[in-house]
Amino acid sequence: MELQEREQAVTDDVVASFAGASSDRFREVMEAVVRHLHAAAREVRLTQGEWFAAIDFLTRTGRMSDDRRQEFVLLSDVLGLSMLTVAINADADPAVTESTVFGPFFHEGSPAVEQGGDLAAGAPGVPCWVEGTVRGTGGEAVPGARVEVWEADEDGFYDVQYDGARTANRGHLFTDADGGFRFWSVRPAAYPIPSDGPVGELLAAAGRGPMRPAHIHFLITAPGYRRLITHLFAAGDPYLGSDAVFGVKESLVVGFTEHGPSEPAPRGGPSAGRWASVRHDFVLAPEGAHA
Amino acid sequence: MELQEREQAVTDDVVASFAGASSDRFREVMEAVVRHLHAAAREVRLTQGEWFAAIDFLTRTGRMSDDRRQEFVLLSDVLGLSMLTVAINADADPAVTESTVFGPFFHEGSPAVEQGGDLAAGAPGVPCWVEGTVRGTGGEAVPGARVEVWEADEDGFYDVQYDGARTANRGHLFTDADGGFRFWSVRPAAYPIPSDGPVGELLAAAGRGPMRPAHIHFLITAPGYRRLITHLFAAGDPYLGSDAVFGVKESLVVGFTEHGPSEPAPRGGPSAGRWASVRHDFVLAPEGAHA
Repeated sequence: MELQEREQAVTDDVVASFAGASSDRFREVMEAVVRHLHAAAREVRLTQGEWFAAIDFLTRTGRMSDDRRQEFVLLSDVLGLSMLTVAINADADPAVTESTVFGPFFHEGSPAVEQGGDLAAGAPGVPCWVEGTVRGTGGEAVPGARVEVWEADEDGFYDVQYDGARTANRGHLFTDADGGFRFWSVRPAAYPIPSDGPVGELLAAAGRGPMRPAHIHFLITAPGYRRLITHLFAAGDPYLGSDAVFGVKESLVVGFTEHGPSEPAPRGGPSAGRWASVRHDFVLAPEGAHA
Repeated sequence: MELQEREQAVTDDVVASFAGASSDRFREVMEAVVRHLHAAAREVRLTQGEWFAAIDFLTRTGRMSDDRRQEFVLLSDVLGLSMLTVAINADADPAVTESTVFGPFFHEGSPAVEQGGDLAAGAPGVPCWVEGTVRGTGGEAVPGARVEVWEADEDGFYDVQYDGARTANRGHLFTDADGGFRFWSVRPAAYPIPSDGPVGELLAAAGRGPMRPAHIHFLITAPGYRRLITHLFAAGDPYLGSDAVFGVKESLVVGFTEHGPSEPAPRGGPSAGRWASVRHDFVLAPEGAHA
């Protein structure tokens, strides 16, 4: 048998092995995964040494992941698979707020905060007032929407990166009768994604920088609407053009306003010192909507 | 921007991000990985839910792996990537012994056994005498070749699957001046690959069986020759046509001879009871040789 035939025979055998899958969708996905995975290996003429290195890389990526560190999400992010998945699932309606990467720093069980409350919980940074509304594509207010927020502090760290298990700069609240939300946090900072693991090695070998432009994460859910996973990016950030995870979209870049110590802050804000503010209105797609 | 353009733009950005890699080979491999990974996601229109499921699957696969369990090797095996890599790197010379999968059960630090010694170390099974030679493609004997052997016992378990850390059915020896080797072990048995992890879930969803036909693993190394990773499969095994990891090659299927209790066994064999034997001559490619 010729070399090419021999290789194709392996691929054909493996694709055929999924013929008896109980789910048509599972079969479809696995057949495509096998065909493309094999095509990549054949295209580059993968060596045994490279195969061992890949196994080792993926194993270490998995072993580094736990409930406070998600190295596989980070890998998906730096390979652009996360943003591609966002693009594939984007809503066709341009009125809907655009999505971006979920990222590796979400975790379940964030504290509830009151409207106007402070979710910084002592995280270092310039106090930042965040407000806006959640609406549907018809312009209707969405009351009771769950707005989940997480972000890095001024040193570029999320709470899950702190020593110990303290929760900070993370919380959720529910929109009021007018779809409004408002809370205190800190002004976000640009930061490097964690580079002490396999993904850091990959970025270094690629000659790529680890920086992400400053942003606040939002996960917004409400009955009858599609879940929205997005960020607000800070206009003017020097890394907007070189986000390590390809997450920036023009429509998500917003101006943060700087306020001097003499400007009175909303209730619950700092009694002295400067503060910042940002406002954004989010628009959710109706449930079941798709591109 | 059109949907297709928007998706292609993501892929183009990510491919371009590897342009500054210090190694041309790393850049080539990563560009191909990104293109094919993205092509797979686009082809199946990967959903966000499927992306989360894939992240979870890969994370659990990594977390299950340690120095006694290699779930990522198993994943590569059941997706045929291992055998494809073997095919890509196969030697062009048909005289060379064919390779097959490395498998997840190798581990470093096996005990040395003497020529004619017993590497079963108490593993349950019918005693089996294994002998043969290691030669080069010119027919020359290869003395001092390291012959590393590992295999499942009659219950289908490798030592790394036993409770505790006992070593059994695993060892290495060096060929004599004539390139010969001989040792006692046990007759191998067909067995299911481990199905208590993510790979087991995948096989179940695919409606695929977990069985591998009976075999003995060999890893043979000698200065001046290419490393050989292969198996000897037992002729007549019912699973030769449906190996869960696609590892069977006709040239590696050999007859194991059954001997009654009255037949005298080679030195070190059982003093009573039946035993088995197998013989095979391995041929190594010269170092640097390639398809």
